[in-house]
Amino acid sequence: MKIIVDAMGGDNAPQSAVKGTLYARQRLGVDIVLVGRKEDISSCLEGCDTDGISIVDAREVVTMHDDPSTATRKKKDSSMTVALTMLKNGEGDAVVSAGSTGALLTGATLITKRIKGIRRAAMAPVFPSMESGFMLMDCGANADCTPEYLLQFAYMGSFYAKRLMGISNPRVALLNNGAEETKGGQLQQSAYKLLKAAKDEGRLNFVGNIEGSTMFMGGADVVVTDGFSGNIALKTTEGAAKLLFKELKGVLKKNPINKFAAAILYKDIKSIAKKLDPNEVGGTPMLGISRPVIKAHGSSNDEAMFAAIRQAKAFAESGVIDDVMRNIEYMKIGEEA
Amino acid sequence: MKIIVDAMGGDNAPQSAVKGTLYARQRLGVDIVLVGRKEDISSCLEGCDTDGISIVDAREVVTMHDDPSTATRKKKDSSMTVALTMLKNGEGDAVVSAGSTGALLTGATLITKRIKGIRRAAMAPVFPSMESGFMLMDCGANADCTPEYLLQFAYMGSFYAKRLMGISNPRVALLNNGAEETKGGQLQQSAYKLLKAAKDEGRLNFVGNIEGSTMFMGGADVVVTDGFSGNIALKTTEGAAKLLFKELKGVLKKNPINKFAAAILYKDIKSIAKKLDPNEVGGTPMLGISRPVIKAHGSSNDEAMFAAIRQAKAFAESGVIDDVMRNIEYMKIGEEA
Repeated sequence: MKIIVDAMGGDNAPQSAVKGTLYARQRLGVDIVLVGRKEDISSCLEGCDTDGISIVDAREVVTMHDDPSTATRKKKDSSMTVALTMLKNGEGDAVVSAGSTGALLTGATLITKRIKGIRRAAMAPVFPSMESGFMLMDCGANADCTPEYLLQFAYMGSFYAKRLMGISNPRVALLNNGAEETKGGQLQQSAYKLLKAAKDEGRLNFVGNIEGSTMFMGGADVVVTDGFSGNIALKTTEGAAKLLFKELKGVLKKNPINKFAAAILYKDIKSIAKKLDPNEVGGTPMLGISRPVIKAHGSSNDEAMFAAIRQAKAFAESGVIDDVMRNIEYMKIGEEA
Repeated sequence: MKIIVDAMGGDNAPQSAVKGTLYARQRLGVDIVLVGRKEDISSCLEGCDTDGISIVDAREVVTMHDDPSTATRKKKDSSMTVALTMLKNGEGDAVVSAGSTGALLTGATLITKRIKGIRRAAMAPVFPSMESGFMLMDCGANADCTPEYLLQFAYMGSFYAKRLMGISNPRVALLNNGAEETKGGQLQQSAYKLLKAAKDEGRLNFVGNIEGSTMFMGGADVVVTDGFSGNIALKTTEGAAKLLFKELKGVLKKNPINKFAAAILYKDIKSIAKKLDPNEVGGTPMLGISRPVIKAHGSSNDEAMFAAIRQAKAFAESGVIDDVMRNIEYMKIGEEA
């Protein structure tokens, strides 16, 4: 098992990519290729045991200022482009990158390619919930979606949840503005019918509509939606949590007696933040790409990069992509665009 | 000033509607008409000073099981239908209801009617933020929107923020999946152009795109979006907050020492919940209806009903509807549907 790590992506590159790699090497025993500016990576590795770790030099870096739709094409010698090309050529089993989401998605689609028959790849992060969490997809890859894309997302999410989240019969729900069958706009109403038909054929455990509030209570393992509203749900969760923690911080620092109480609770409150922190869940799989690609959060620290590498390994071992390919007949939509 | 209160709407009807009315009568000095089953309302008013409070009998109740699109038409003698008809006939200055959002919106549109030239009414609740809060509209009235609807929402929200939130030049933003001009789907890209043009003409203080995360940090007073993604943002905020408070509760009750610290912080932590509780903000205005209609949260308690009545009074006094009517030429969209 060899994981290809884009060492130059994210806010803490290349340090966190390298540290995450060292942890992964120790704890998981995987081989890792670090792609990026050789001298920068080497200096981070100085004095470390580099057994099983190799470097592939790439001189350019895709930044947040690059146009995501052209970045990997224009910067052919970028760490991201080289990593994705290596993946395509079979020189590794999965790619991890904390770089620009848009550029990685476009690069993965153009270089590594989608699974044949899959019309759009989707971002599928796992959200915390009162149960063990749920996957929300698409969370930003495709602002405009058709009902058929949502059906494909449902299948892919279901396979992923089965293989990687250990759920034997994943419950799939449609994100909607109400629980009733007739809710939502044209997209949701049409998607509902497709999902219902897949359920009636015994192919999907579709449990109906779910709302933005109730999805956090549990009831679904995979929630499908278009990339626009999925992105709104993802970012709103982040923003609301930030606001709450800021208010909480204000309370904990308000006066000496509160500070005293805060000292008692400090560790436990921090554990909540950790539990709800996207850095901790690791990375977001890009489902629909023909080989495993994991997007690590842009602000990933060492531990988060390690978690993303661990997830990439699990993804590569899982057989999810084979599941999708084997079942593509059910998921096909008219003619390939 | 006379406020018409649908006494039978919401989880705590008619008690909370009546209690809220009594508070409002005491603190605001407004006249109030309570609409609903006379005997139920009277029994709640027993022993109270009913000066300035009258009852209009209505025998039916719109429930959550009624089809929202036909409820007010089918139940002609429902408290909601009677209240909206009274408003239309000028027998009061505003309506407050904690009943079914969908039914109230449909009823307001069919009975009280939209402002001439306004194509869709929108739900416009105020969200908490690190500044003083922002209005997000539409939050669920119209799942499918056109760019022109969003432009009208922007104008209406701007007038409302000016008159009722005391902001001289309200900053209007477009909810999007990124800050750049080119972000979003077809709807957002087209809406951006319309909003930008209105800014260039000096008619709107459009500040560009805002993300679901950053809107909580501040930067906009009014955020416009389609009713589907607005509903997702609203419900996701509720759900994420519930999850966080549940986790926090777990920490505070974890062991005796944590319970001790919790006792110190109890009041202050409760004040956060209150600050972020939709019940506390009061009601949601339905902007675009020709007379003021305030939707109170379905779970409104006495204080929340009072807050909604207070808001209805402010809305009726504000002149927002006149602002919209006076500026309708800028806001018009082709031919009325």
